[in-house]
Amino acid sequence: ERFKKFFNDKGVNAFKFRVGSECGRGKDEWEGRTEEIVKTINHSLDKSITKMVDANSCYSPAQAIEVGKLLEDNNVVHFEEPCPYWKPDQTKLVTDALKIDVTGGEQDCDLRIWKDMVKRKIVNIFQPDVMYMGGLTKALKVAKIIEKGGFICTPHTANLSLVTVCTMHFLKAIDNAGPYLEFSIEGEDYYPWQQNLFLNDPFNLEDGKVTIKDLPGWGVEINPNWLDNAEYKVSEIE
Amino acid sequence: ERFKKFFNDKGVNAFKFRVGSECGRGKDEWEGRTEEIVKTINHSLDKSITKMVDANSCYSPAQAIEVGKLLEDNNVVHFEEPCPYWKPDQTKLVTDALKIDVTGGEQDCDLRIWKDMVKRKIVNIFQPDVMYMGGLTKALKVAKIIEKGGFICTPHTANLSLVTVCTMHFLKAIDNAGPYLEFSIEGEDYYPWQQNLFLNDPFNLEDGKVTIKDLPGWGVEINPNWLDNAEYKVSEIE
Repeated sequence: ERFKKFFNDKGVNAFKFRVGSECGRGKDEWEGRTEEIVKTINHSLDKSITKMVDANSCYSPAQAIEVGKLLEDNNVVHFEEPCPYWKPDQTKLVTDALKIDVTGGEQDCDLRIWKDMVKRKIVNIFQPDVMYMGGLTKALKVAKIIEKGGFICTPHTANLSLVTVCTMHFLKAIDNAGPYLEFSIEGEDYYPWQQNLFLNDPFNLEDGKVTIKDLPGWGVEINPNWLDNAEYKVSEIE
Repeated sequence: ERFKKFFNDKGVNAFKFRVGSECGRGKDEWEGRTEEIVKTINHSLDKSITKMVDANSCYSPAQAIEVGKLLEDNNVVHFEEPCPYWKPDQTKLVTDALKIDVTGGEQDCDLRIWKDMVKRKIVNIFQPDVMYMGGLTKALKVAKIIEKGGFICTPHTANLSLVTVCTMHFLKAIDNAGPYLEFSIEGEDYYPWQQNLFLNDPFNLEDGKVTIKDLPGWGVEINPNWLDNAEYKVSEIE
């Protein structure tokens, strides 16, 4: 229902949802509901909507391939992190077995790992996180590695903080940007801390698109009230 | 002179010294002194003493090979981290070009990187750091990976804190332990914070060897005076 509302009100035409539980060793995020949720979303949403799924390092290769077939049958085109991210050989089995895109890379920041993942074609779409990467400079290097491998780059951005702001600029700066900006729709219940973080809302959606501002810096101003209410860590000498 | 004293007084029969400056892009730790220091140490120390060198990710492959030949000519048997650790292909060139042992691994904690380094024989001796690895459990996994590759494991321990205590136990627990425990001889000027850290000195050297205690835990007791004088970090809500 939230997906429908975003489609109708904001023109968003691609949605991602969660199946596996985080590093869940095969456990569903909502026990026994993976098949039901995949089928229901396929039937309920407009045919023009792109459907994506995130498994959060949950499955064994055999399980992931089984889930992947279900996704194929239900018009899901993007299967994110099907197997434990630290076991790329498992992910590779899934990528090779499925027709839909298997994706991943949010966890990785070491350029050696990135080169290896791209060279061995571990996934079809690569998803660096500009913050986990340690910033734009290194993230741009990774985008180049991905581009040289002939792949597109659809960055990981888990919430509406600076990670999404910086990634908007990042996507504009690279030549192999994927078609979507990951844009969290979780509200105050899930991410209470992100409420009113910025003064001028950088995330206003029109026709399913954000506008990248050309204001100084990242084009955002942190809300001073947010800062006043924040928890601070200080160092003291006793 | 410090090496001579430790040899005569404590029976230590292996020493390591620094040549390259940390990530120094070719710059000597002591400008223009690498050749002099290597030759002087070779001439000054007893022939029975094992000589080792650490280059701290300093050199290009060509430079490292040149320094390595100098080391070979001066009876140095261990050449640590000759090239930037994040460029294993460079290190591999040095390993293949030299007869003496090239060593490394202190910087790495990802098991994927470890498997790759061992498989490609990037160095001859592998040097995980039990703390940088994230603890004994993961370090023991790495020791197994190294053992399966047919290599020995000479852990990295930069100072006389718990890292050296834990590594003493670690070396006793693995089947492919190298012949030496890295044992810092830097004093109060270099590591002021490590003075009087433990109540019962766990690092007493007799005949060049430490004794691994069978006391509970790690066999050490942190000095309460040290803790009283330590800098504490606290979190506060304003």
